[in-house]
Amino acid sequence: MGSQIKAFVFDVYGTLFDVTAIKKECEELYPGYGEKISQSWRAKQVEYFLLRQLMGNYATLQSITRQALKYVLKEQGLEPDEKNEQQLLEAYLRLPLYPEVADVLSQLKDKKLVVFSNGSHDMLDPLIEHAELQTLFAEVLSIDDVKQFKPAPTSYEYALEKLGIESHEVLFMSSNGWDVSGAKNFGFQTAWINRKNLPVEELDLPPDYIFKDLNGLLKWQ
Amino acid sequence: MGSQIKAFVFDVYGTLFDVTAIKKECEELYPGYGEKISQSWRAKQVEYFLLRQLMGNYATLQSITRQALKYVLKEQGLEPDEKNEQQLLEAYLRLPLYPEVADVLSQLKDKKLVVFSNGSHDMLDPLIEHAELQTLFAEVLSIDDVKQFKPAPTSYEYALEKLGIESHEVLFMSSNGWDVSGAKNFGFQTAWINRKNLPVEELDLPPDYIFKDLNGLLKWQ
Repeated sequence: MGSQIKAFVFDVYGTLFDVTAIKKECEELYPGYGEKISQSWRAKQVEYFLLRQLMGNYATLQSITRQALKYVLKEQGLEPDEKNEQQLLEAYLRLPLYPEVADVLSQLKDKKLVVFSNGSHDMLDPLIEHAELQTLFAEVLSIDDVKQFKPAPTSYEYALEKLGIESHEVLFMSSNGWDVSGAKNFGFQTAWINRKNLPVEELDLPPDYIFKDLNGLLKWQ
Repeated sequence: MGSQIKAFVFDVYGTLFDVTAIKKECEELYPGYGEKISQSWRAKQVEYFLLRQLMGNYATLQSITRQALKYVLKEQGLEPDEKNEQQLLEAYLRLPLYPEVADVLSQLKDKKLVVFSNGSHDMLDPLIEHAELQTLFAEVLSIDDVKQFKPAPTSYEYALEKLGIESHEVLFMSSNGWDVSGAKNFGFQTAWINRKNLPVEELDLPPDYIFKDLNGLLKWQ
């Protein structure tokens, strides 16, 4: 299968960038709550874009991320505060890369590397520039262009059309179970970057490859 | 608005029946893990039907509930065991009612009371019979008949067609934020049964009424 790969397509949040690192900023603003806020925030963000996709009620991930944060602060009994919210949303534009990412991507620089994210360009572009990855990627694709969130098949269809290749010629990487399942469901080859050593999702859509981090991709170097 | 209500439509899991009560059976089978399994099981079950709806990859809630349990047991490092799984799935057919439910429904027996659930009939019918509620409901509607999970608009559309009334003539009750948001998005009047004293979901779809339990419905007695 590997020989057919014409594009290496990467999810962003949780796959290239560590969304849990934001607990540091959360902890500074809300001492004692950093871990809880950061975990619940991510979970609520994912829930909200799944729900909006299901309800046919689109909003950008930027807007959803803000709404998820508002909810989580209220849930924890903390006073929503526009200044703190703004500060945390800005921290989302400077999330750190996982340690191996820059090195692995550099070693794969002869391949066609593409980003495909639920993030809107107002979140994605600053993030990728801050990490100095922009020259490594042939394209940065956002579902915002079609307003269809992953894992809806319509979202992967958009990426495929932009790439102009066949679905089985895509190797799609994500650390998110829902994303790697959705990509497999659509027809991509998939590599699950299982950073947290979790079980495979019980969705009858096992990934083609499982790696503990991106170093597993070096077999295609 | 209240005078227009022609049907009182109830969600089931978390609204009439306490899904968290299953922690007792979980604790008996997996001492020390009861709370964690029961909470993660429900969360994974909800995630899985949202994902399957998004991916266009239907399975019954019965099957999804089993898959969610398998995942959670593995996630906790516990050995999946068919006998234990079966025992827990059977406990799902005997979940307890919240304390006020039978009394409130009895007091509303002159109204048209309807159940509308993501559960398939093989789960719903035994559950409602075990609680001896079957005579109180005019209809027990399952999304399994159209294979469209709430909160997709197509699911509420099915319920509305079965009821044969206008969407604003339905008062829909759920304790689940995603469900009460989806019903509002579709056009039902909604009452959020906020049993856990949570914030309103930040989805720009606030419920028409918020009650801490079903006693709030007695204003329409």
